[in-house]
Formats: sequence, structure tokens, C-alpha cells
Amino acid sequence: MFSVNAYAAPSANEPLVPTTIERRDVGAHDVLIEIKYAGICHSDIHTVRGDWGPQSYPLAPGHEIAGIVTAIGSEVTKHAIGDQVGVGCMVNSCRECKNCRKGEEQYCLKGMTGTYGAVDRDGTITQGGYSTHVVVTEDFVVRIPQGIELDAAAPLLCAGITTYSPLRHWGAGPGKKVAVVGLGGLGHMAVKLAHAMGADVTVLSQSLKKMEDGLRLGADQYFATSEPATFEKLARTFDLIINTVSAPIDISSYLQLLTLDGALVNVGAPAEPLPVNVFSLITGRRSFAGSAIGGIRETQEMLDFCAEHGIGAEIEVIPADKINGAYERVLASDVRYRFVIDVSTLG
Amino acid sequence: MFSVNAYAAPSANEPLVPTTIERRDVGAHDVLIEIKYAGICHSDIHTVRGDWGPQSYPLAPGHEIAGIVTAIGSEVTKHAIGDQVGVGCMVNSCRECKNCRKGEEQYCLKGMTGTYGAVDRDGTITQGGYSTHVVVTEDFVVRIPQGIELDAAAPLLCAGITTYSPLRHWGAGPGKKVAVVGLGGLGHMAVKLAHAMGADVTVLSQSLKKMEDGLRLGADQYFATSEPATFEKLARTFDLIINTVSAPIDISSYLQLLTLDGALVNVGAPAEPLPVNVFSLITGRRSFAGSAIGGIRETQEMLDFCAEHGIGAEIEVIPADKINGAYERVLASDVRYRFVIDVSTLG
Repeated sequence: MFSVNAYAAPSANEPLVPTTIERRDVGAHDVLIEIKYAGICHSDIHTVRGDWGPQSYPLAPGHEIAGIVTAIGSEVTKHAIGDQVGVGCMVNSCRECKNCRKGEEQYCLKGMTGTYGAVDRDGTITQGGYSTHVVVTEDFVVRIPQGIELDAAAPLLCAGITTYSPLRHWGAGPGKKVAVVGLGGLGHMAVKLAHAMGADVTVLSQSLKKMEDGLRLGADQYFATSEPATFEKLARTFDLIINTVSAPIDISSYLQLLTLDGALVNVGAPAEPLPVNVFSLITGRRSFAGSAIGGIRETQEMLDFCAEHGIGAEIEVIPADKINGAYERVLASDVRYRFVIDVSTLG
Repeated sequence: MFSVNAYAAPSANEPLVPTTIERRDVGAHDVLIEIKYAGICHSDIHTVRGDWGPQSYPLAPGHEIAGIVTAIGSEVTKHAIGDQVGVGCMVNSCRECKNCRKGEEQYCLKGMTGTYGAVDRDGTITQGGYSTHVVVTEDFVVRIPQGIELDAAAPLLCAGITTYSPLRHWGAGPGKKVAVVGLGGLGHMAVKLAHAMGADVTVLSQSLKKMEDGLRLGADQYFATSEPATFEKLARTFDLIINTVSAPIDISSYLQLLTLDGALVNVGAPAEPLPVNVFSLITGRRSFAGSAIGGIRETQEMLDFCAEHGIGAEIEVIPADKINGAYERVLASDVRYRFVIDVSTLG
């Protein structure tokens, strides 16, 4: 074990503070990563504040990690010292269940090991990317190809894969009409990715405030959902709707925007159940579905796709001492579109 | 126009009575069918009683029609006098929209023409199968192959296709685990069809009361949903769940029974929206979907499949003067599994 600098929450009710956390020694299959950048995801805030259940403290969040390999275990074959690599929302899984064997480790039947706040395979509690170094088994580390800046790559490890995976699974591509609900950290990635896949992309946002951004990022159309006329005009239009909004929305109204066999896929989950009008499903053989991040193989595929298409996240890089302020801005939806911590300031 | 004997509701609040209704003259593309049997579907009751909106009266319901062709128009090529034929829930559609062109007339973008209580293309109100004859355009008439008795065939036109279509669409077959929620008119057909398709079939019923029937009809397992242990035991089990229950059920609990990428498909729609826990969707990339009857081509395919596999509905044949009593028994779930009216008693 060794200590590294980190920014962590001492409790659910206190701001994050500079501290040190422990990392395990580099095992035979482990990679030691010097973290360069860590994205701030909305779920970091929910988790450290205990919104999703009690946590063990101090807790360093962060599951959008980009860095450089600085040491490898004796059995490591996938990564080499000096490589640009990333770590996302999970650092391990059982690897034996049928979902893991399919490469869908995020749906591990025994439960994937989350990057922070989870019980690791050795019984310790995992600590996330708001720190200078992390040790991860090589199979849960992905390559960040040349051509994506490390800071803009960090959010791809959560916001990128969370939107890429359902876009692929539900067949976004040429000839398909895709709507993205919400233009935030996840939504802006969904727009870029769906556009690069060749789909016709529409943003459905509460207002037209970010319209110029949306069109610049790749949207073909942009509508305000605060306008009832939007729902009439767009009835039966989309093959796929990716809902990136975690707050409750009127799902039944959005389902009506789907064409025959269309799917509305939630990538966030509101705490309260959402009422669904079953007629909206039946009248177009529509589906209301959910999707969680993506598997390791698909995360690598997403990074390669982003490099090929020159896609990174739109980011605002901040020093570590601005994390708490950034949290307030994330909660106020005041970021375009992702905060990324410059980990060198964690010194 | 000509008059035919029928059983019809004079108003939303009165029992059905013997009467006569008008049928249009047989046009160039029309088929005149002498109705032999008409199934009683739960939706007949909802419709004539105005539960789904105001109706025009008198109204003869019935959309599970089996009979014999007794006259054809000059341009008819698909059917001949003497043929055994059926008519289901729709008697026309626009035939031009993209859904109609795909053979999914039930999702006609201009609205399919329902077999009763709908505004027909000529502006009259359609009248259903509780009558001695019906005139239908040949494209919405299907062949009933030799090998299915006409009385047992009638319910296939609604209960059969309503369950066959989602079973096919979501890939029921060998190696797939299918659950059927509710063992009524629709449910018993879903069990027979899924079994014939080669799937492993489980019935999820409130109690074990009909267990012997369920196993005889083709179920491999049978569980009581009133037992909370059922939901623990069957967690993450099914590729497909067909929910035939129109009353509200706790969808989120049933979603947990789906394996990765599984779908729960409602074929009935409760009036009230159903609350859906989005975590249940996200944690297994699950879908909550809906399906309505099936297209004409698929209805023919279903009838051919039933003939090949010796499948008919389990029925109780009644004379017309027992219709009102049968309605009460349907509402009390006291029928195994479909009432069929012997139309010769309508004389």
C-alpha cells in the first residue's frame, strides 16, 4: 500500500478537502496510472452526498479518469509504461457470469466493482479519480488513442460510453432519426456521437438557450420542450430517443414522438418511478428502455471511434481547489459541458 | 344495402338484444361472409359499455369472426365462394402510409378501421361479428386453413394474433425463456403458441388454480404471483414476458424477472398510467414495450402456423341468447378460455 494525494469528502455534509488516500501495491495484473485529468460527473455529487445511500468516508469520487501508465505488473500484456489510458465507472467484475463473458461487465450478475465507493474484490473500499494515481487491473483499463487530448478524453469514460452504447445497441446511423433529451454532460456527447454515426439528430431541450451550441455540436434540429407545439409537430418522428435527463419528465409524451418500433432509452434514473401510459407503447409497438454505461470492449471501441472522428468532450478545466464550486455549478446546470479537474494541481 | 340478423347493444347501459343491422352491397373488391362463429373478447364489453369512449348505437360488437364465403365481388382474386375465412380486429386501413406498406396495417398512420364501432371509409359506422353476415374488402379477409375447426379458429383472429405477433417480433423460440402473465383468453393462446414455437414457457398467474390447465396447454413451469418468493426465485430469468393482464400490475417487479436485454410486452392497456422504476430498466438494458394485434400478412401466417401445429383456442360455444350472461362471466374471469357464439342461433 502507498499513499497518494487526493480530494475527498470527509462526510456527506462537508465540502471536499485535500487529503491522502491509500492505493494497493501494483499486483502482477495491475497497471499504475498517473492521473492527469478527472471529469466531474453529476453522480459524483449524488454519491458523496449520500443521496444514493450511505457511504464510507473519506471518499474520493471520480470515474472519468485519463492518465499515463507509470508502472505495470509482471503479467501485464495489454498496456505499457508511457501509454495514454483511461478508467471509467468500473474497475472489476466477476468475469465469469454470462453477462461478463459476453463483454457486458457493466451488467455483471454478481455486481460490477464501481470505481469509487464500492467494495473491491479484496474487501477495501474503492477510491476514485480525484487523486494523483490509481491502481487498476489491466482488463479494466482502456487505451486512449493519439488524437484525443487527455483532458477532453476524460469525460468519454462515463458520459461518452453511456451515450455511445445505447446509440449502437439501438442502431443509430444513416437513415435513422435520433432525438437527445437534455443538452448537458451526457446530452452533448450523445449529439456528437449520433451525428458522427450518421444519424439525423434532434435536440429536445427545455428552452432554446443552448440552440447555437447544439447545432454546432452536430444537431440537425433543436426544439424547446416547454412549447407544447413541439410534441404535436414531432409526433411519430424518431426511431430512437436518448433521455439524458435524470429528473422526472413526462415519459408518455415523449413516447408519442417515436415512430413504429421506436425506443426511448433512459441513461439516467430518477429516484421516483415514472408513470407510463401503456397506450403510448401499444399504439406503435414502442419501447421504454434503460441502458447503463457499456462494457470494456465497447468502451475501447468508443474511444477508437472518437479518435477517428475527432471527438472529445466540451470541457472547462479547473484546478482542484475549485471542485466544490464546480459542484454547485453542476447542480445549477451551469457548465458547458463538463468540468475536468487538472490533477497536477492536486500536487 | 341489406339487413342481417344481429345481437347488438341498444345503449351503453342496456344488455344486448336481437336486432337487425345493415350491411353494404358487395362491391367489386368485397367478400360476403356467412358468419359461423364469433368470439367474445373482453374489449367487446368495454366498447359497448362506453368504457373507452362514447359509441354510436345500436352497436353489434365482435372481432373474432370465422365463416364461409358466400359471394364475391367481380374483382376479387384472393377468396372464392365456399372458402373458410376469418376477419379480425380491422376491416381496412389507408394502405398508403409507411406502416401499411410494411404490412403493419394495425399501426396505420391514418388509423386502421376497426371491425365495429369505427367510422368506415364510406362514413358509416362499422358493425361487428355478432351477426349472420359481414361484407369485408378481400385484403382484410384471411384464409382459415383446413385442420382448424371454425369455432376454435374464431378467437385466433384477436387473441391468437395479439399474442403471436409479439412472440415472433421479440424472437420466442428454442433456447428462449418466455413468461406469460395471466392465463385467460389471451394468456392461454400465448402459452400454446410460445410452446409450439419451441420456447421454454412459464405461466405467472395470481394463484395456482389453473396450474393443471396451464401445464396441459404447454407451459413448462407455473408460478403464483401472489407468492413474493416467486419474484425472488425468478429474478433475471426471462428473455420475454408477455403481459396479458389489462388491470394494473406492479410492472417494476416483473421487469426484474427479465434477463439482460429482456422485454416485457403489454398486449393490454390499463386505463391508468403504470409507474415504472427506471432502475429496473437500466440495470439489465431491459425494455417495457407494447404490441397491438398484428398485420394481415402476419395474421395469415399465424393461422397457417396454428393449422400446422394443430392449435385452436380452448372454447365454450354458446347460443346467442347467452351473450349477456357470458359477459358477466368474462368480467368475473369465469371462462376457460374463450366464449364463442354459435351464430346459427342468431337465425
